[in-house]
Amino acid sequence: MIAIIGYYNTRFGELWEKSFFDLTKETAGGVLKNNGIDLERVGAIFFANMLAGVLENNLHSAAKIAEILKVNIPIFRVEAACASGGVAFHLAKNYIEAGMTDTAMVIGVEKMTDYSPEEITTALAAASSGKEQEAGLTFPGLYGLIAQYYLNKYGYTEENLAYVAVKNHYHGSLNEKAHFQKAITIDDVLKSPYVAYPLKVLDSSPISDGGSAIILTKDKNLIKKAKYKVEILSSHVATDSISLTDRKTLDEIYASKIAANKAFKEAGIKRNEINIVELHDCFSIAEILAMEDLGFWKKGEGGARIKELSTMYGRGSDLVVNTSGGLKAAGHPVGATGIKQLGEIFLQLTRQATNRQVKNAKYGLAHNVGGSGGTAVVSILGV
Amino acid sequence: MIAIIGYYNTRFGELWEKSFFDLTKETAGGVLKNNGIDLERVGAIFFANMLAGVLENNLHSAAKIAEILKVNIPIFRVEAACASGGVAFHLAKNYIEAGMTDTAMVIGVEKMTDYSPEEITTALAAASSGKEQEAGLTFPGLYGLIAQYYLNKYGYTEENLAYVAVKNHYHGSLNEKAHFQKAITIDDVLKSPYVAYPLKVLDSSPISDGGSAIILTKDKNLIKKAKYKVEILSSHVATDSISLTDRKTLDEIYASKIAANKAFKEAGIKRNEINIVELHDCFSIAEILAMEDLGFWKKGEGGARIKELSTMYGRGSDLVVNTSGGLKAAGHPVGATGIKQLGEIFLQLTRQATNRQVKNAKYGLAHNVGGSGGTAVVSILGV
Repeated sequence: MIAIIGYYNTRFGELWEKSFFDLTKETAGGVLKNNGIDLERVGAIFFANMLAGVLENNLHSAAKIAEILKVNIPIFRVEAACASGGVAFHLAKNYIEAGMTDTAMVIGVEKMTDYSPEEITTALAAASSGKEQEAGLTFPGLYGLIAQYYLNKYGYTEENLAYVAVKNHYHGSLNEKAHFQKAITIDDVLKSPYVAYPLKVLDSSPISDGGSAIILTKDKNLIKKAKYKVEILSSHVATDSISLTDRKTLDEIYASKIAANKAFKEAGIKRNEINIVELHDCFSIAEILAMEDLGFWKKGEGGARIKELSTMYGRGSDLVVNTSGGLKAAGHPVGATGIKQLGEIFLQLTRQATNRQVKNAKYGLAHNVGGSGGTAVVSILGV
Repeated sequence: MIAIIGYYNTRFGELWEKSFFDLTKETAGGVLKNNGIDLERVGAIFFANMLAGVLENNLHSAAKIAEILKVNIPIFRVEAACASGGVAFHLAKNYIEAGMTDTAMVIGVEKMTDYSPEEITTALAAASSGKEQEAGLTFPGLYGLIAQYYLNKYGYTEENLAYVAVKNHYHGSLNEKAHFQKAITIDDVLKSPYVAYPLKVLDSSPISDGGSAIILTKDKNLIKKAKYKVEILSSHVATDSISLTDRKTLDEIYASKIAANKAFKEAGIKRNEINIVELHDCFSIAEILAMEDLGFWKKGEGGARIKELSTMYGRGSDLVVNTSGGLKAAGHPVGATGIKQLGEIFLQLTRQATNRQVKNAKYGLAHNVGGSGGTAVVSILGV
């Protein structure tokens, strides 16, 4: 058994007073201190970051973390665009499975708000294909194409998408670490300006700063002593052609389907046993596709199902989605996102989620996507 | 048992007619075709690259490789500055150990010669610490400081360093894939212009383009069928503070010592059983330090020992170092280097090294370093 025994995240948001280095130091120190774990127990660190190289000519983070923590242990930087955090977790789990260490730290940090919208938009486009970059397709543009295809194919409107944002902003209002802690209405979403038709500002996750970290271990004593713990039941990664033009269809993220099927098979549980999902809602359309691709809703019915708001906290549903606020409201500091998703499930399953605590949650699923769907990670946790 | 059953590398050099994408495609296809391995057998890919994000706004390589190969398997991009290749190999081996796949491909690609010396020098400095970057310390500058300290402490001169370059250029002259295939003299080195005192142009590895790939497997049938195979006996990674000012001393790369000690312990062999070493000679001084840090020579005697040229091919020694030409002459396309090192050992141990074939080689060691020593990977192979 490998368990998560600790979590920490910084406030997500526009943290202009904190540098990439500050956030890394706070996150690495925070996860140890807040969970009472000695640094000496950590045998390896996996670090998730997408943009520090492009934005601030900052690579080789492994050695920079060695300097911050004054350690000589194996440290690895992993980059998979917006899936960097989930992938770092996946590799850390397997490093423990391989017997290289009993205990590992996974950290994700991203510093994005010191740059102009043009600089960030260009940097984020590094995750898409060369031909998409040459065509001037930004991420909102790519997901806008996906949204147009989905709405047209299944007969929905922009209003259907808006429910995702309303739900996740409500959740964000219950999370003191969220970038946006303000509930919004359907009208707010529909009246917000377009970013890339049919997606509007309030259909889109923000540019955020932040850091998240978790501690994983198979050390029986550490697990026994830990006040809070959840078991990692499975974690799988799949990839797909990066270019939308090379995909079979635009109304699914195929990599999510593959990763989810493998993760459910290994965990040995059914879709209806999952109580908590943190999924990759970089844009409102992405949550609807993910609910279908992960197998919770049938293909094409997501546009209607989201309007029931059954996946919103406080509705008494057996399945609540993105209680952290998701990428939409909790914020999307890219490298930190996948780890925050796992952390939110950890908080929920260990009953530490305070005013957004879902009752009787037993199983949770985290779903992290890179780019427009070129990488997907699905991990299942349980208590 | 996990074995390397295939290797491919492109020519290293100034490959102006080939893009990063071209080199990736050639390398991935080449390692499958040249070794008769079906793509279907490959269950995961680890991709090593340092600079594509910084230089050409190109990240999320995992999904780009999925598009090239038309696969949906787990693919991971690993970045550890100049140690990216060795680290990717290390993680691939452990992914197999963890039971996630039987067979993995490890690819490293770097495209560096399309940029001005200023652009490349700045980009490479991303691997050093913020304070070193602010101080204007380039990589030659950092290794220049290390070289000054070493020469002064042990009473050597620039001539001692020059023997490294002469040996490795001779080896490069025997390697048809090397960037530089021309032997040089001590006089050539000493008369070449300074890059950063006391290091000269001919003490320094070049800026190169190139790709390398290997296939690893624990599949008994694949191993049995493979024409050439070597066993992976151990692989270990260690880190150290990135800034030279935070190191205990400048006459050793401490991370190399830790990784080497762990690798020898796990492999269960002694230093004097190693016949072939590919080590990280980014600058001439780095080879001398590495020979000491890896435990082949005593600390401080390297400056004298290198003058014996006992580690040069054709001298009948039991230990030959950098038969590929090393980073110095074979070239240093950063992400590809660590994999080329393993590939050269594979060629030597399987008697495919043609005109530079070391007789009776049984064990080989690969040593890959990131930055000025912030990351080190040591892997031991045997037949």
